[in-house]
Amino acid sequence: MRKLFVIGIGAGDPDQVTVQAIKAMRQVDTFFVIAKGVEKQELLDVRTAILAEHVERPYRVVEITDPPRDRDPADYRGVVVDWHERRATLLAEAFAAEEGVGGILVWGDPSLYDSTLRMVELVLESGRTTFDYEVIPGVTSAQALAARHRMVLHRIGEPVHVTTGRRLREDGLGHGSTLVMLDGECSFTELPGDDVHIWWGAYLGMPDETLVAGPLRAVQDEILERRAALRAEKGWIMDIYLLRRG
Amino acid sequence: MRKLFVIGIGAGDPDQVTVQAIKAMRQVDTFFVIAKGVEKQELLDVRTAILAEHVERPYRVVEITDPPRDRDPADYRGVVVDWHERRATLLAEAFAAEEGVGGILVWGDPSLYDSTLRMVELVLESGRTTFDYEVIPGVTSAQALAARHRMVLHRIGEPVHVTTGRRLREDGLGHGSTLVMLDGECSFTELPGDDVHIWWGAYLGMPDETLVAGPLRAVQDEILERRAALRAEKGWIMDIYLLRRG
Repeated sequence: MRKLFVIGIGAGDPDQVTVQAIKAMRQVDTFFVIAKGVEKQELLDVRTAILAEHVERPYRVVEITDPPRDRDPADYRGVVVDWHERRATLLAEAFAAEEGVGGILVWGDPSLYDSTLRMVELVLESGRTTFDYEVIPGVTSAQALAARHRMVLHRIGEPVHVTTGRRLREDGLGHGSTLVMLDGECSFTELPGDDVHIWWGAYLGMPDETLVAGPLRAVQDEILERRAALRAEKGWIMDIYLLRRG
Repeated sequence: MRKLFVIGIGAGDPDQVTVQAIKAMRQVDTFFVIAKGVEKQELLDVRTAILAEHVERPYRVVEITDPPRDRDPADYRGVVVDWHERRATLLAEAFAAEEGVGGILVWGDPSLYDSTLRMVELVLESGRTTFDYEVIPGVTSAQALAARHRMVLHRIGEPVHVTTGRRLREDGLGHGSTLVMLDGECSFTELPGDDVHIWWGAYLGMPDETLVAGPLRAVQDEILERRAALRAEKGWIMDIYLLRRG
């Protein structure tokens, strides 16, 4: 493989793709797709729609089956590192078989809670194959959430803390605003206090987009119910939320 | 004004504009531009280039002169609030004179350290004029920085704290990674410890893009020198950096 593009494609709306991403896609001979099972078919469909709309030259799609992992291990970091290494081995084989330009389309942006760049570095460190690579930034679900709620992520001059559901349960709410990603456990229900406001969004930019905002204690049951119903109906959910005290 | 689009246009590279942003721009009759003085002419040029490339229908551009403000006040929040109100008054007059669709192009994304959405809310709260408005998310300089350094903003499962130079000086470095915006004072020089790594970028996506990364103590003088030279040469600078211990 001569070159690899790792391309952020936005948070769910196919129109969130950038001109820079489109220009990169048009140079790609083979797109590598890490398949995550049937529940994410809708996500694959968005990628397919983006390629069909913007890329006219022929390209191949190589599917790589995602190795299984323990979703709630005691040693979280160890399990993730091991899983990244197994993924990297599969990717190295696929990359080594490619002679032209490769591409990986990443949901949102590769810089936030995405393992693609770590896997690419693992492949290069393994010495199995070598190539140049370039990252194309994308709109993240954080920006998509803020846009749909028409809000700034922080109060004037204050910080915003970007974290995971797991870390929110361990660390609690800090000063300023807290943006929570990867929270399958609805960790906001465990926060103490009556002065927290939440802005929640699921399937941002997609046909099933759902938004709820309000005082956390007043709207948390509505979020739990709608989240459970949507997840049951569609088989998967992708959501994000912002929390702020006061 | 029937409707207002607040449109994120990416961090500096005209190709970072999204298809969604282009579609919104093509509906706009009047673009409102808040002029910030000659030193930002290059930023205005990027906006002009984006419009020239993607919008064929005729549109007007209304320039609004930014009211002056104290850049280093004792009461930071008070001065900013007052400045927002004076800007909002000017915007309300301009909006009230528009009968079609308005647009404001925002550098990066409107959700991070940008006052446009607060001003729009102030205009609506003032009751001087009323309109519907929609926010189009954009690629932020945080994503652009990470892409150019080909990195993830945090370690596996860890948080990333997004803050300002002012708050970094007050709060110090927290756990995880810290992304610093709006730091005219190079506050990274005041951090204690020899175990901090920095990834710095200026004019991201523009012809003068400059990147420096390394152990903070080893590269901080290089960043200070290059930053001062670039700022002197161009008359303005826009930079951002990520810090991480260990």
